[in-house]
Amino acid sequence: MHNKLKSRGFASDNNSGVHPLIMEELAKVNHGHTLGYGSDEYTNKAAELLKEHLGPEAEIWFVYNGTAANVLGITAVTRPWNSVITAFTAHIEQDECGAPEKFAGCKVLTVDTPNGKLKPELLARHMHGFGFEHHSQPKVISITQSTEMGTVYTRDEIMSLACFAHENNMLLHADGARIANAAVYLGLGFKEFTTDAGVDILSFGGTKNGMMFGEAVCFLRPGLSGDFKYIRKQGMQLASKMRYISAQYIAYLKDGLWKRLAEHSNAMAGLLFDKITKVKGITVTQQVQSNGVFVIMPRQVAMAVQKHFYFYPWNEEKSEYRLMTSWDTEAGDIDDFVDILDKEMAKYNANKKGL
Amino acid sequence: MHNKLKSRGFASDNNSGVHPLIMEELAKVNHGHTLGYGSDEYTNKAAELLKEHLGPEAEIWFVYNGTAANVLGITAVTRPWNSVITAFTAHIEQDECGAPEKFAGCKVLTVDTPNGKLKPELLARHMHGFGFEHHSQPKVISITQSTEMGTVYTRDEIMSLACFAHENNMLLHADGARIANAAVYLGLGFKEFTTDAGVDILSFGGTKNGMMFGEAVCFLRPGLSGDFKYIRKQGMQLASKMRYISAQYIAYLKDGLWKRLAEHSNAMAGLLFDKITKVKGITVTQQVQSNGVFVIMPRQVAMAVQKHFYFYPWNEEKSEYRLMTSWDTEAGDIDDFVDILDKEMAKYNANKKGL
Amino acid sequence: MHNKLKSRGFASDNNSGVHPLIMEELAKVNHGHTLGYGSDEYTNKAAELLKEHLGPEAEIWFVYNGTAANVLGITAVTRPWNSVITAFTAHIEQDECGAPEKFAGCKVLTVDTPNGKLKPELLARHMHGFGFEHHSQPKVISITQSTEMGTVYTRDEIMSLACFAHENNMLLHADGARIANAAVYLGLGFKEFTTDAGVDILSFGGTKNGMMFGEAVCFLRPGLSGDFKYIRKQGMQLASKMRYISAQYIAYLKDGLWKRLAEHSNAMAGLLFDKITKVKGITVTQQVQSNGVFVIMPRQVAMAVQKHFYFYPWNEEKSEYRLMTSWDTEAGDIDDFVDILDKEMAKYNANKKGL
Amino acid sequence: MHNKLKSRGFASDNNSGVHPLIMEELAKVNHGHTLGYGSDEYTNKAAELLKEHLGPEAEIWFVYNGTAANVLGITAVTRPWNSVITAFTAHIEQDECGAPEKFAGCKVLTVDTPNGKLKPELLARHMHGFGFEHHSQPKVISITQSTEMGTVYTRDEIMSLACFAHENNMLLHADGARIANAAVYLGLGFKEFTTDAGVDILSFGGTKNGMMFGEAVCFLRPGLSGDFKYIRKQGMQLASKMRYISAQYIAYLKDGLWKRLAEHSNAMAGLLFDKITKVKGITVTQQVQSNGVFVIMPRQVAMAVQKHFYFYPWNEEKSEYRLMTSWDTEAGDIDDFVDILDKEMAKYNANKKGL
Repeated sequence: MHNKLKSRGFASDNNSGVHPLIMEELAKVNHGHTLGYGSDEYTNKAAELLKEHLGPEAEIWFVYNGTAANVLGITAVTRPWNSVITAFTAHIEQDECGAPEKFAGCKVLTVDTPNGKLKPELLARHMHGFGFEHHSQPKVISITQSTEMGTVYTRDEIMSLACFAHENNMLLHADGARIANAAVYLGLGFKEFTTDAGVDILSFGGTKNGMMFGEAVCFLRPGLSGDFKYIRKQGMQLASKMRYISAQYIAYLKDGLWKRLAEHSNAMAGLLFDKITKVKGITVTQQVQSNGVFVIMPRQVAMAVQKHFYFYPWNEEKSEYRLMTSWDTEAGDIDDFVDILDKEMAKYNANKKGL
Repeated sequence: MHNKLKSRGFASDNNSGVHPLIMEELAKVNHGHTLGYGSDEYTNKAAELLKEHLGPEAEIWFVYNGTAANVLGITAVTRPWNSVITAFTAHIEQDECGAPEKFAGCKVLTVDTPNGKLKPELLARHMHGFGFEHHSQPKVISITQSTEMGTVYTRDEIMSLACFAHENNMLLHADGARIANAAVYLGLGFKEFTTDAGVDILSFGGTKNGMMFGEAVCFLRPGLSGDFKYIRKQGMQLASKMRYISAQYIAYLKDGLWKRLAEHSNAMAGLLFDKITKVKGITVTQQVQSNGVFVIMPRQVAMAVQKHFYFYPWNEEKSEYRLMTSWDTEAGDIDDFVDILDKEMAKYNANKKGL
Repeated sequence: MHNKLKSRGFASDNNSGVHPLIMEELAKVNHGHTLGYGSDEYTNKAAELLKEHLGPEAEIWFVYNGTAANVLGITAVTRPWNSVITAFTAHIEQDECGAPEKFAGCKVLTVDTPNGKLKPELLARHMHGFGFEHHSQPKVISITQSTEMGTVYTRDEIMSLACFAHENNMLLHADGARIANAAVYLGLGFKEFTTDAGVDILSFGGTKNGMMFGEAVCFLRPGLSGDFKYIRKQGMQLASKMRYISAQYIAYLKDGLWKRLAEHSNAMAGLLFDKITKVKGITVTQQVQSNGVFVIMPRQVAMAVQKHFYFYPWNEEKSEYRLMTSWDTEAGDIDDFVDILDKEMAKYNANKKGL
Repeated sequence: MHNKLKSRGFASDNNSGVHPLIMEELAKVNHGHTLGYGSDEYTNKAAELLKEHLGPEAEIWFVYNGTAANVLGITAVTRPWNSVITAFTAHIEQDECGAPEKFAGCKVLTVDTPNGKLKPELLARHMHGFGFEHHSQPKVISITQSTEMGTVYTRDEIMSLACFAHENNMLLHADGARIANAAVYLGLGFKEFTTDAGVDILSFGGTKNGMMFGEAVCFLRPGLSGDFKYIRKQGMQLASKMRYISAQYIAYLKDGLWKRLAEHSNAMAGLLFDKITKVKGITVTQQVQSNGVFVIMPRQVAMAVQKHFYFYPWNEEKSEYRLMTSWDTEAGDIDDFVDILDKEMAKYNANKKGL
């Protein structure tokens, strides 16, 4: 079935490969011995580079992937009787197979949102029972930036959530698996909409934007990461040959590679939006602010197009699909995709009329 | 502040003491040595009595309390990557301080309900991702009978949830902290609306209906409790002098003591409902089907009445309060309560007009 | 097989029943309503009484049983990357089905001892890796007083362990399931060999000395129990009708009931030791300092005697058995037991010669 | 202090870099899109290659590192009330910061060994309490091959442990972080001393032998890995761009790269042994069967040599040090090391005499 598949699809930004400059950096650090487990010069340098982007008080810890970064970052600031409040669509709720509950022991509470974005007023239903031992104690609000719906929080929106969290003795966590796409959309440096906006803990990812693996748990203010070295090790996330994570971050942050790649994938999503809105019968369901385009199309049409380009259903009941662009998406991919979609929609519409 | 408090209030059915017949039975078993940890004749007898009520295939395990019964019963049939779906108002969600997540490791997913009762159609939003490793696997639907809102599932409602669960390879769990009150309301034997209606695991409680402590985890069909002896011990819930839990169940089930007590507390709630609906300005928010009455009253009025009778707020935003009757509530308590409430409401209404 | 069993055996001090004065106190508190979950006057009084015995800074929290007291007390002062060092024979190692690992998440490290008692010099093998994230961080030393072998730590022995613990930034935990027997043996008040000797956390039990159920987690210095209310609730150990635990402690501590009972069971063990050492072929393997007598006897002999009195093997390889006396053991029980043992040993020795 | 350090030391085989052929393979798979999370052709191929080495019934699951492979493999075949028996020196006991206890919930029991190798007769002390709910149930015996002491189990030794495990309804787990070194030493294919010798679960590592990251959890018989996909994901060990782990295994297993590299590092350890035994005053404490040499030397000497070559103390009390060779160790490194050691020992001996 997949033999006609194009080499680049729209299934996920982690289906793409690794950017050549990152591969180069891996080769560059590949000589001689270094101390293991992060006591090497490259890890030190990578952490310093991240601190340039996040502020001098940030503490940086590398782990293997985004789920681990989220779960271990949350574990660091909670005890098992705490709860974490997040959007129903959040990765930590839908896509981590209960890892936060299993490892942190915490409760994850959710609220429904139209666009993947939390707002203080949505959180009210969970803001009770403080100090009452029968009830899990709310401790963390967790946002995703960019969200799983392709939308982006503004700096003000983040500030208002941070304010709300801090007023309630809670902390603000951000899952930044696609933080570069958000930075590009907002036209801001990372620090401006994280540290400066009141985010306390950040998962800073790059794998969806051209890296191979690795994610950084960033504690953006002092005093939050006291025992994190043990949490990371006991969490099975301490890499022995750490330099190969660090090297990727060095390349990623050097000369704005992260920015060029995210600009490109955002631009490709914009192009896809422009073209797909012209296809009759397709509805775009979310604002396109990063590298995802969410569309409703008939199921038969989707299945026909999936023979050429792979992509995932998002909400089967609504026949909603998710189209992700990546750092290596080409304009021609989008032309081809929309052409095929257009033909299949035309066929579908003709059939429908015929009936 | 509390020195004017009446000796019996409406705060909770666990504020009352232990029924004299249960105290008598404790004295009766208090002689000589028996083997510890449940290998005694009384425990055997208590389990047999419960099986008479629940069916010959039921397996009965005594633990200390209701939270443990719920959490360990769920642990027995799940692995940490499973999820449990329940009402937002459920005890396991609101009142167990995250014990299900901590001990079973599972995710607890909730749905909103108007009256504390689940329905298959409400569950749809969580019925996805089966077989998909990124997503916690739904495995248990958990209901409370009677519910935390004082309502009672009919036998048909339970059957439809059990059917739905089993069609989806899931199990139906029931928190029966107030199961006696439900049985009395439904006019059915326990078996008819649990085992026969498709419930798989039941927490059978009595502490809220005249017992001192102890709860029974009941696996209603074979094959569900394989390793439960280890789960109970590792869960810190294996009583050494088990006969003192078992004796309570023996007395509770003998000559229908459970029934007389639940009939009484239900009747008292009915009386309270009758009288309180006559107080001008009081709204009853839920159907009164067991031993709880939920009412909206002005906060100042509640505070004034609480100087005489203790009871808890349920929803502070809505100014909703919960009034629980118990096995030892007397009609005179209700008369006194409604008298005072009536006077305070009158004062309040007068003041309001005056303004 | 058991139909000839005497009503009182030597299997365990938890096979006996509840002392009448404790039953009386339960009846005494059994009237009217009280707030649940420990917010009642009896719980307050029981805690005050324990503080009289343990010092004014002690913080007292009631739970259901000894396993829970140990595990939750340890949980309060550790994080999952800590380790707890204890004797190989300790209850937390051998008899809690892994509850400390499951709930606290910690590693339990053991050392071999000849008599169940730790000494600083025995601990050396585990005292390394401090600050090294690959290695679980030693945080608690846990002793049992009286030990599982019937021996008792002197005050000086405890002080030296406490010193050692504190010098290494660790804490000293004591499992006091049989603490009354130790106090009687030492001729000291509880405080003298716990709080004053440097113990930090104590499980204060009474179930093996005439109570029905319940155990007290006692934090003996300030600052150790910060979040314990959540730990207890999430640990499924918060009793709703708490007054029935508290009442037992009130009776137990009033007029030295605890002391009279422990004096009696210790004396019975002494009597048993005196008589059993006169039986030819029986070896007593541990010093008798509390209410246990450990003996080696031929397996056939043990099996013959077990038809009359139940008791447990301790170490099957060595044919070692444990004989526990209780608050209700009578001198006549010991006479009967030793008579039967004597006859069975004589038979055995005759047979052996005959061969 | 480290500025005179040689580029290659003897601290750990994970201080070395990545073999060029592995880097090449990473480049080779770095084009186009593939499905994430292991649903790609490279992962399929890598698994097939491992099955050629381990048998057609093996099931292969890639994770990020060795700690995770051990912990998740053990989790798959245990429940929290089980115990795992291992050598006191095992990585899962000493070097995983309690991850097995935290994640599997199990107890880890240890035995002392002279050389890091378990034997059935050493295990007896833990083989009791089966079916007794108070006691953690022994379920897994875990060996390390090659051991942490540089020794290697023979095929017969493994068979006898497997037999012992299976007779007791237990399973045999092997931590194969350095399995290639063992295969080379034994002169056997992997299958001969794992699957064929009765090993049930194997962590197959390569990072210490020239790979960058990644480890394979291998279930060597059917029926052991039922839910492993959820365990891996919930364990935060599911790599999105899995092809970059798989590619490494492809290169590693192709044309016997694993063998050449392990042969080399074993040979270098042999050379180091030959030379170091000639240094007066140095004692080698373990047989050199893989790529580690354990030696006792005076602490001052060690510190002087560490200014040139880094290596770790193993047992500070005994002044024992561990010297690891790697795939990239050169004979010249050993010459230089032994020269410096020789000089420092001579200085030390002279001083000592002088005194």
